[in-house]
Amino acid sequence: MTAHRRSSDGRTDRVAVIGASMTQFGHREDEWIMDLLAEAGTECLDDAGVDADEIEHLYVSNMTSGEFEGMTGVMNALVHELGTIPAYTQRVDQTSASGGAGIYAAWRSVVSGDSDMTLLVGGEKMTHRSTAESTDIIASVGHPVEYKHGVTLPSFAGLTARHYLERFDAPRESLAHVAAKNHRNGIDNPNAQFQKAVDEETILESPIVADPLRLYDFCPITDGSAALMFCPESIAEEYADEYAVISGIDGASDTHVVHERKDPTVMGGVVDSGSGAYEMSGLEPADIEVAELHDMFTILEFLQMEGLGFAEQGEAWKLVGEGHTERDGELPINTSGGLKSKGHPLGASGVAQGVEIYEQLVGEAGPRQVDAETGLCCNVGGFGNCVITTIMEAAQ
Amino acid sequence: MTAHRRSSDGRTDRVAVIGASMTQFGHREDEWIMDLLAEAGTECLDDAGVDADEIEHLYVSNMTSGEFEGMTGVMNALVHELGTIPAYTQRVDQTSASGGAGIYAAWRSVVSGDSDMTLLVGGEKMTHRSTAESTDIIASVGHPVEYKHGVTLPSFAGLTARHYLERFDAPRESLAHVAAKNHRNGIDNPNAQFQKAVDEETILESPIVADPLRLYDFCPITDGSAALMFCPESIAEEYADEYAVISGIDGASDTHVVHERKDPTVMGGVVDSGSGAYEMSGLEPADIEVAELHDMFTILEFLQMEGLGFAEQGEAWKLVGEGHTERDGELPINTSGGLKSKGHPLGASGVAQGVEIYEQLVGEAGPRQVDAETGLCCNVGGFGNCVITTIMEAAQ
Repeated sequence: MTAHRRSSDGRTDRVAVIGASMTQFGHREDEWIMDLLAEAGTECLDDAGVDADEIEHLYVSNMTSGEFEGMTGVMNALVHELGTIPAYTQRVDQTSASGGAGIYAAWRSVVSGDSDMTLLVGGEKMTHRSTAESTDIIASVGHPVEYKHGVTLPSFAGLTARHYLERFDAPRESLAHVAAKNHRNGIDNPNAQFQKAVDEETILESPIVADPLRLYDFCPITDGSAALMFCPESIAEEYADEYAVISGIDGASDTHVVHERKDPTVMGGVVDSGSGAYEMSGLEPADIEVAELHDMFTILEFLQMEGLGFAEQGEAWKLVGEGHTERDGELPINTSGGLKSKGHPLGASGVAQGVEIYEQLVGEAGPRQVDAETGLCCNVGGFGNCVITTIMEAAQ
Repeated sequence: MTAHRRSSDGRTDRVAVIGASMTQFGHREDEWIMDLLAEAGTECLDDAGVDADEIEHLYVSNMTSGEFEGMTGVMNALVHELGTIPAYTQRVDQTSASGGAGIYAAWRSVVSGDSDMTLLVGGEKMTHRSTAESTDIIASVGHPVEYKHGVTLPSFAGLTARHYLERFDAPRESLAHVAAKNHRNGIDNPNAQFQKAVDEETILESPIVADPLRLYDFCPITDGSAALMFCPESIAEEYADEYAVISGIDGASDTHVVHERKDPTVMGGVVDSGSGAYEMSGLEPADIEVAELHDMFTILEFLQMEGLGFAEQGEAWKLVGEGHTERDGELPINTSGGLKSKGHPLGASGVAQGVEIYEQLVGEAGPRQVDAETGLCCNVGGFGNCVITTIMEAAQ
């Protein structure tokens, strides 16, 4: 992992994040993928103080505009809509980790010296389809054999949760703690799909989806978009007094056939991408002060905490139960509300994780603000089939 | 355009192409996108002499596996199939220029220092759908207003061809010269979909599709896959005696609404991406000795020749008619047979252009071999909505 960019004086020039935006997440009536992408993209240009004609590369994180809306070429539509022609544009797809993959692609575009100003916009429009249709489209990310046998991502989550609870002697209530915490955080996020507390009794008595997981263990189907602006650190101060830098980033794959994994409670892609990101940044898990994890299902928050070294294997549930990951705890996790309450518009989610970490690091998180100089986001594709971990640090 | 990579001694380290492969293009009965990608990927590993566990990044150029086959996550399936886990993997989509976008993404992965060995596999499986269904899916790349009014890519091609022929006083036969030449070249490409000569009378009397364009002015619907292997030049000699380097590459967008372009015979994305690639390489159009252009429709070969500086505006048809672009001419174009006779499996096509240029530069083009040390490929997304131009040079 030797990636670097040299500034004109030959010193290492890191990639800075100088602006961020996200739309309202939720059900966006009569608005389509293009409207959502354009809304977040325009707002990010404003937030960063960057003119459209300064953009050299524009990446669009989106998994399924063709399947959900019969519209492909959304990146070409967006580059037109924002007035950024002749910027280069490309769609980035890594299933539900498309947003993280977009951060990784944007980072490479700048660190390579190929682009001095890169805009990333992630988004998805989903709620016009039924939950069954959406689940079917999303299930197409899996191995065809799994898909044909009806094994959807929620069913993998149920199997994994049952195994975890039994093996590590964790109570069913421990999963409810994750959902309740993330819903509490979402109350203070005006762009979250759900902005209301949900008590643990409601969670524990909600309808079963994939035993032992119930309705409130799952993220919702969501429309929304989020955006980030990237440039070399050497010019970041021209745009922002306070900004963040990407000090570590890596992506890693795991088996596409989930049952071939040695230990169902270890997500190899989380472990490997996390190791790569820590190594590049020179940081350790204990140095991270705020994190956004991919809580598509509550059980995933435990697995990522453990895979990223925030907890020993089988111990994450205890830390959550003890308040360690609350906003006033030692390591606040999913201060944004997470996918659980903020919503999960596939291609937007990884970008929105980056938006939250950026806002925390530059002090723009409003009532959600925690005291942090270093943050991490972990975006999971498929059921851990490919994962991107990004570490950002505050800079001024 | 300052992109570079430094080797350990601080010198510029270019990106090398050290292996290439392509499957048989055409109708692949009972084989699906995964089979095709795996076939090309495996063959490319063999060709480059690279072990699966050396791969750090694996990009998959594919536009529509979800729409054509109801299968997403193809990059995760491939990384598993090839045994390259835990390599990072991502799908690259830039519509019909997904292959060129994949070359650009692979190049950035190496030039940034992020990956020391990157495999790119492009592919598409299309022939199980009818031509009408395929044309409808492909038309979804355009602006929704164009799409709703039934303006498909072939209809844009017809309108543009009519304008070009009238404005530049070119005979209808000039377009037939392109088709006849590319079919002649395809005879010597064992992987081409069509390996037969087509005389100009047949072309000129084939059924009208979008007047003045007829059946033989269009590329076919195709199944197929192609792959390329990339590494830093500083280690290329460990793998190959002869290899190519990417000396120039750039991508650029144009309006998403085609009718907003000032001059329908000028493809801005071709001009801009070509300029960028020439500037990076330090070469001029006259230095290029072999080229693969995106002849999805015959008229596009003229527009790209002119946009890339191989001919003055309105003059390309004369050069083609005079034999300038034949295999024994001054600038052989589409020695592979082009999309016209080799076929156009969307995500594979730009990669296959790179395969042909690589094989020409390292002397592996067999009966199609021309004498060339520098080659160019131009891959067009949509109707020129975003274009990637790549310049390669022979190295040993």
